[in-house]
Amino acid sequence: MTIDLKENERIDDLQRNGYKIIQNRDGFCFGMDAVLLSGFALVKPGEKAVDLGTGTGIIPLLLEAKNQGIHYTGLEIQEAMAEMARRSVALNHLEEKITIVTGDIKEASRLFGAASFDVVTSNPPYMNDSHGLKNPDLPKAIARHEVLCSLSDVTREAARLLRPGGRFYMVHRPHRLVEIITALKDCRLEPKRMKMVHPFADKEANMVLIEAVRGGRSMIKVEAPVIVYKEPGVYTDEIYTIYGY
Amino acid sequence: MTIDLKENERIDDLQRNGYKIIQNRDGFCFGMDAVLLSGFALVKPGEKAVDLGTGTGIIPLLLEAKNQGIHYTGLEIQEAMAEMARRSVALNHLEEKITIVTGDIKEASRLFGAASFDVVTSNPPYMNDSHGLKNPDLPKAIARHEVLCSLSDVTREAARLLRPGGRFYMVHRPHRLVEIITALKDCRLEPKRMKMVHPFADKEANMVLIEAVRGGRSMIKVEAPVIVYKEPGVYTDEIYTIYGY
Repeated sequence: MTIDLKENERIDDLQRNGYKIIQNRDGFCFGMDAVLLSGFALVKPGEKAVDLGTGTGIIPLLLEAKNQGIHYTGLEIQEAMAEMARRSVALNHLEEKITIVTGDIKEASRLFGAASFDVVTSNPPYMNDSHGLKNPDLPKAIARHEVLCSLSDVTREAARLLRPGGRFYMVHRPHRLVEIITALKDCRLEPKRMKMVHPFADKEANMVLIEAVRGGRSMIKVEAPVIVYKEPGVYTDEIYTIYGY
Repeated sequence: MTIDLKENERIDDLQRNGYKIIQNRDGFCFGMDAVLLSGFALVKPGEKAVDLGTGTGIIPLLLEAKNQGIHYTGLEIQEAMAEMARRSVALNHLEEKITIVTGDIKEASRLFGAASFDVVTSNPPYMNDSHGLKNPDLPKAIARHEVLCSLSDVTREAARLLRPGGRFYMVHRPHRLVEIITALKDCRLEPKRMKMVHPFADKEANMVLIEAVRGGRSMIKVEAPVIVYKEPGVYTDEIYTIYGY
């Protein structure tokens, strides 16, 4: 097929099912957080999933590659990102399985309807220090800082989008863990499973993966941590496995 | 000195400062949780600390051995345990530094006065399934199950006992983490530091160490995990270090 690449765009191999993804060299490229979240999340056969703030579309692509869900939706507010993600979907011939929708997370439940998904995923902006940003309208700033949506916008819409018993998977920064748990509880998403990610075995966590269930009872499992590097520049076996090498 | 040992009592070496502790073979003996909490907690020079539900007195003894605090109090509701803990204090000639008080956690702030400590520690009962207990009045049941005090009793009294900016250190079970964080937040104890304890590197956590600050701002550090065993029956170097071998 003809691949319509724009200036500064490149194609990366996802090491899964032969899938590829288009990214913009100068824009926001996906990170290990999205890959880890895709490995942590589970979409069961027949289930429908939506990814809030999908960016390049990396999470729907990886989830589709690893799971037996019936359909995946990616919601992205930046039209240029959404358009690029749509081309990645087409590049992998996944138009029947993945739909990229341009829209605002804050409006997600109005857009798709309440209780319309079994699974919600999100790798939302981590930083809530957006007041001092020089260019808050730049694509990278929007992906990284809470310029267009806050943590509580994400959890509120996730709760509304999920059927009762549905599962929300999020990756975030551990320093905001108390806020995250409070935000989830506030909208009756009960944290049920958590996994810390540490760059090295003796360093503090720099990512947290969390699964919350709509209307679940209070009881959480803290899984074995992910350790990223066994020595500087050398990934642990677990990371190579998650990346599919 | 003469050691007044009762039937079924034994003396164990704490591997710190030559300190020893009296324990009852048939009663509740201290576990790794108390040792890890004593290593995780910090009492700064000149500070006063209190341990809620001190049992054998293990936590005041280890804190005194490792820190430069001015005074340590242990509060214990079971008179027989408190009396045994007092003999351990005497055995180590620490009567000037450690006081064991018989009393109820639920009454702690009335007993000692509000804002009277810099540090509060607790290794409280973990289990909230006490309704089905056959012998809820047995010493072991009281130490392990929320028979005489609940998690929220402990956090409420800790908050009252602490001066503003004072620190609360607790060890608990990770499956109750969401409840723990909610209970702390409810009494304005802000979780600031957390450490998971995993029996093996690839197993889920079975203990959590948490530091909360009275009136702190929301920002938590998730420290490198403690891994207990490197192979079945063989402790990791970290555990040997904590135990003082």
